[in-house]
Amino acid sequence: MRVAIVGATGAVGQEFLRLLTERNFPSEELRVFASKRSAGKQLSFAGKELTVEALPESGDLAADIVFSSAGGAISKAHAWTWAAHGAVVIDNTSAWRLDPRAPLVIPEVNPEAALEHRGVIANPNCSTIIALMALAPLHRAFGLRRATVATYQAVSGAGAAGIDELQAQTRATLAGEPLISNTFDHPIAFNLFSHDSEVGEDGYNLEERKMLSESRKILNQPALRISATCIRVAVFRAHTEAIHAEFDVPVDESEARRVLSEAPGIRIVDDREANTFPTPLAASGRDDTLVGRIREDASNPGGIALLVSGDQIRKGAALNAVQIGEYLIDKGALRSSVSS
Amino acid sequence: MRVAIVGATGAVGQEFLRLLTERNFPSEELRVFASKRSAGKQLSFAGKELTVEALPESGDLAADIVFSSAGGAISKAHAWTWAAHGAVVIDNTSAWRLDPRAPLVIPEVNPEAALEHRGVIANPNCSTIIALMALAPLHRAFGLRRATVATYQAVSGAGAAGIDELQAQTRATLAGEPLISNTFDHPIAFNLFSHDSEVGEDGYNLEERKMLSESRKILNQPALRISATCIRVAVFRAHTEAIHAEFDVPVDESEARRVLSEAPGIRIVDDREANTFPTPLAASGRDDTLVGRIREDASNPGGIALLVSGDQIRKGAALNAVQIGEYLIDKGALRSSVSS
Repeated sequence: MRVAIVGATGAVGQEFLRLLTERNFPSEELRVFASKRSAGKQLSFAGKELTVEALPESGDLAADIVFSSAGGAISKAHAWTWAAHGAVVIDNTSAWRLDPRAPLVIPEVNPEAALEHRGVIANPNCSTIIALMALAPLHRAFGLRRATVATYQAVSGAGAAGIDELQAQTRATLAGEPLISNTFDHPIAFNLFSHDSEVGEDGYNLEERKMLSESRKILNQPALRISATCIRVAVFRAHTEAIHAEFDVPVDESEARRVLSEAPGIRIVDDREANTFPTPLAASGRDDTLVGRIREDASNPGGIALLVSGDQIRKGAALNAVQIGEYLIDKGALRSSVSS
Repeated sequence: MRVAIVGATGAVGQEFLRLLTERNFPSEELRVFASKRSAGKQLSFAGKELTVEALPESGDLAADIVFSSAGGAISKAHAWTWAAHGAVVIDNTSAWRLDPRAPLVIPEVNPEAALEHRGVIANPNCSTIIALMALAPLHRAFGLRRATVATYQAVSGAGAAGIDELQAQTRATLAGEPLISNTFDHPIAFNLFSHDSEVGEDGYNLEERKMLSESRKILNQPALRISATCIRVAVFRAHTEAIHAEFDVPVDESEARRVLSEAPGIRIVDDREANTFPTPLAASGRDDTLVGRIREDASNPGGIALLVSGDQIRKGAALNAVQIGEYLIDKGALRSSVSS
């Protein structure tokens, strides 16, 4: 298996390298690509040094599988070319998520969609993945009709630059020095702000629209109603989400708890006595999405409220993509199902 | 006017001192009380030094108006005794909020309730005040039926100790040292956690129940339905809340915006172009509650979603109490309306 990572020097790219080792991903050859600026840099992988390459003009990455996280513009321009040279591209940007040619896949939720790929498979937005890890099993059991979501999103969603900015601004605040903002428009140290993505005419920002449109595609529920308020908080790498959900049938707490406890990829953390519930620190570095505060919605009989935390770089990005790759290998489906 | 502050050395007590000066509160005499441990300490007030006193055994604070923020146990034990000695007690703890004898007052929302006092007036919970600053005017116009709320609460809600813990843990994290937790059960630096109050059998914690029960009392709507998820975040002193609200009649964005822009005590911060909305840093030190992200709820036609930030120590506590005092003075209602 020839594997390529595009965007290898970024926060998600680095996580790809860790995961390939950690999960013994069958990569006989591994090439790492990044911007021209990073070309020539050395990256450690399984005790060896890899040299970062600039993307070849030819568009041939000489790979069977490409994990791409170099940003939407790069994927928009090149993903189908990489695929035309024989790779399956698992793309971690928003470029192709809503394109009908690209399946949008969470392996625990809709793995079979991956088998329909034509060369490009899209990895959903991190907030969407983390919400659906809990909502999808409930949907299967009870029919999700509506959800309101408030997010507490880590700075890692803005990559290594976001992480650096939180760290630098926090140091500056504690030292009584002025804050420098390079990555975010608003201070993030000891603060929070509405997600730094464009706000549309309906008042929803892009991150919030993604949660709606991607959830509809992944769950194949074009009429699903989701209203999210996406907020960036002073947390390094895991997203948390407070969710109120309504279903086609009334759901009680014990039914919700049973369904969630049997669902793959999630771990119930719901100790009321000890006041221990999902937190981003506990979720960081973990594969499982943590789910807790499971309760009947006091404002809506038959509805369910809950709190989830998931590692944004891992399950929200690199891990989900690697799991898609593993699934394809397992099913012998690396070649495009509809290629000439 | 003889004024007493009980709990004067705490974060809210200190804010009382600042506000009395700032607002030229007519205090001819000012006494400051705190625990025995703090007795003898000097506090600055309007260029003079005040000596902190322990609470007198007699229960007579020799005051016309008492601002109390020394904790629920102190208020539970002493508030009515202070009142029996002739003071109006404006109590900033949860001790008497749901007691039918004590009005629960937000001056912009239900000032007239204060006139019915029998010696003790309760100041609502900070999260409740900040939510209702936006929800109450919408309720008056459209009839609030249901709300889901997710909070982003500052550590100042746990007093000066909470502020110190966030600062100390943040320093420790940046220095790679172990975190010490004295005030909170869970780390707060670069983290967040479900609110540190007892969780009941229905899965809601005390902070969340307060928002429901206090809102019902303040708005005089015993059937109002509110489901909150209260979360503590790494912010020093302002609370933020993401709210979805449903009304008796369908509301559109422009109607909501008009009502909110005319409501007292709130300031609209809702610049979609510049992606500038309420943040806790912008709300800190301000009297107004900031309201933004005003939009129609994409998941529920006729509903409204919004984001509010308010200074937890100021409008969420000390300012609201001082405003109650000012209202009573203005109405000549410092003496109990039903006292013998």
